[in-house]
Amino acid sequence: MANIPITSTQNNKVKLAFKLRFKRSREQSQRFVIEYYRDLERAIEQGYQLDYAFFCEELASEGDWYIMRMLDPHLIHPVTEQVMVKTSYRQNPGGLLAVMVAPPLPHISQLDPAYAGSVLALVNLQIPGNIGALLRTADATGFMTVLVDTSLDLYNPNIIRSSTGTCFLNTIYAANSRDTIDYFKQNGYQVFASHLEGATSLFDINLADRSAIIMGTEDTGLDEFWVQQCDSLVKIPMIGQVADSLNVSVSGAIFMYEALRQRLQSS
Amino acid sequence: MANIPITSTQNNKVKLAFKLRFKRSREQSQRFVIEYYRDLERAIEQGYQLDYAFFCEELASEGDWYIMRMLDPHLIHPVTEQVMVKTSYRQNPGGLLAVMVAPPLPHISQLDPAYAGSVLALVNLQIPGNIGALLRTADATGFMTVLVDTSLDLYNPNIIRSSTGTCFLNTIYAANSRDTIDYFKQNGYQVFASHLEGATSLFDINLADRSAIIMGTEDTGLDEFWVQQCDSLVKIPMIGQVADSLNVSVSGAIFMYEALRQRLQSS
Repeated sequence: MANIPITSTQNNKVKLAFKLRFKRSREQSQRFVIEYYRDLERAIEQGYQLDYAFFCEELASEGDWYIMRMLDPHLIHPVTEQVMVKTSYRQNPGGLLAVMVAPPLPHISQLDPAYAGSVLALVNLQIPGNIGALLRTADATGFMTVLVDTSLDLYNPNIIRSSTGTCFLNTIYAANSRDTIDYFKQNGYQVFASHLEGATSLFDINLADRSAIIMGTEDTGLDEFWVQQCDSLVKIPMIGQVADSLNVSVSGAIFMYEALRQRLQSS
Repeated sequence: MANIPITSTQNNKVKLAFKLRFKRSREQSQRFVIEYYRDLERAIEQGYQLDYAFFCEELASEGDWYIMRMLDPHLIHPVTEQVMVKTSYRQNPGGLLAVMVAPPLPHISQLDPAYAGSVLALVNLQIPGNIGALLRTADATGFMTVLVDTSLDLYNPNIIRSSTGTCFLNTIYAANSRDTIDYFKQNGYQVFASHLEGATSLFDINLADRSAIIMGTEDTGLDEFWVQQCDSLVKIPMIGQVADSLNVSVSGAIFMYEALRQRLQSS
């Protein structure tokens, strides 16, 4: 490490790292924080740029040491435990905290239909844990594109964590609903939306071809625009005593895995 | 409401309601708290007993009023907003807080094999949101039995909430791993465990008959006991760029929905 240790919590890099827990600070500075070495490894693999990192030997895990050795030493600052406790979003801070450059999300207009594949579109989702889990499952099931609202705060620490770094994949594009439906129509997509009142069962639709799945919000479900615009409202069968809905990250996963099952079994 | 208002946060009922956010207090007093009216409705439908409830008119939603009118007025205490703020586990307290009697979970020895149906067994799961989501999906998919560790803290407020009250169903039994495997063997169950190294794909197994699914912990996966004891280690297919595992509530849901799909399509 080429830098002298930072020990003061009044240091400007420390102050910025702390402030990046707030969405507004992330937007203003176009920076965000990664604290888990696996997530950082994935971000770097995807071409994300490190601005600077804090490294605290006393708190470092093997994984932290491993990733630290891959970073440019000029960007690493040794810090005290006190600095880590101040800046970390974790309940028990680790030994590493990386401040990353946040590039703007690519817009749907840059999405080449030849490579778009199956698409998951997230409309107005709010809970970071759900969004992260959906990104993780989208990658696992080979959904080649995820469309998110232009306002989505992708670098929220809880999205990063729950996505296990899949939020850094270059499969994620920003789009509003109008551009999204236009894209689907121009490119021959069959558009399915998960809906509690859907007339068609998930197990009776063909998801193997160019298909798009729309997931609405946790509380109020799909908005009227998508109820009107999609080709089918699809109901996930439920046969229980009381559960009349599912967690949205579960609904999305059931959909994406049914698509994967159909693709695997037809090949 | 037959009772005079409680305005002091030093009142014994207020103190108990506050303390019930801690596991140890729930165990000692055999009480727990419900704060959402839908969850309370489900608990009451399943025969759970109310000890006492706080009701705050200023904060009450329509749902709170609706459920309040179903309760024994002698058990309802009008309270101030200050009391709700003190006792509520919610960031924005609602108008209702019910202190419930916590019966011990029935033991697997009381589980009649004739009615056990498909079984989900949760082994050492720790994160309340995952446990709750799994209970919710188990109900939705008609899994008639859920086995949980004897130490599981079922009435954790985050389990109640994320299960949307399905934690109150009489389908949940406590069992240690030894009793669980004995039960499966004695009653002709085919035992499947989700495992990242599983040799069999989820889409190649028959889940329609007497089947049991074992889900291990979030961090370390399935313990050695179950790796040895189960009939098949099953891998959920993953074809993504980086995701090499799934959230445990997602894995469990994929399993249970594959079982439901097979049952629906074979009938």
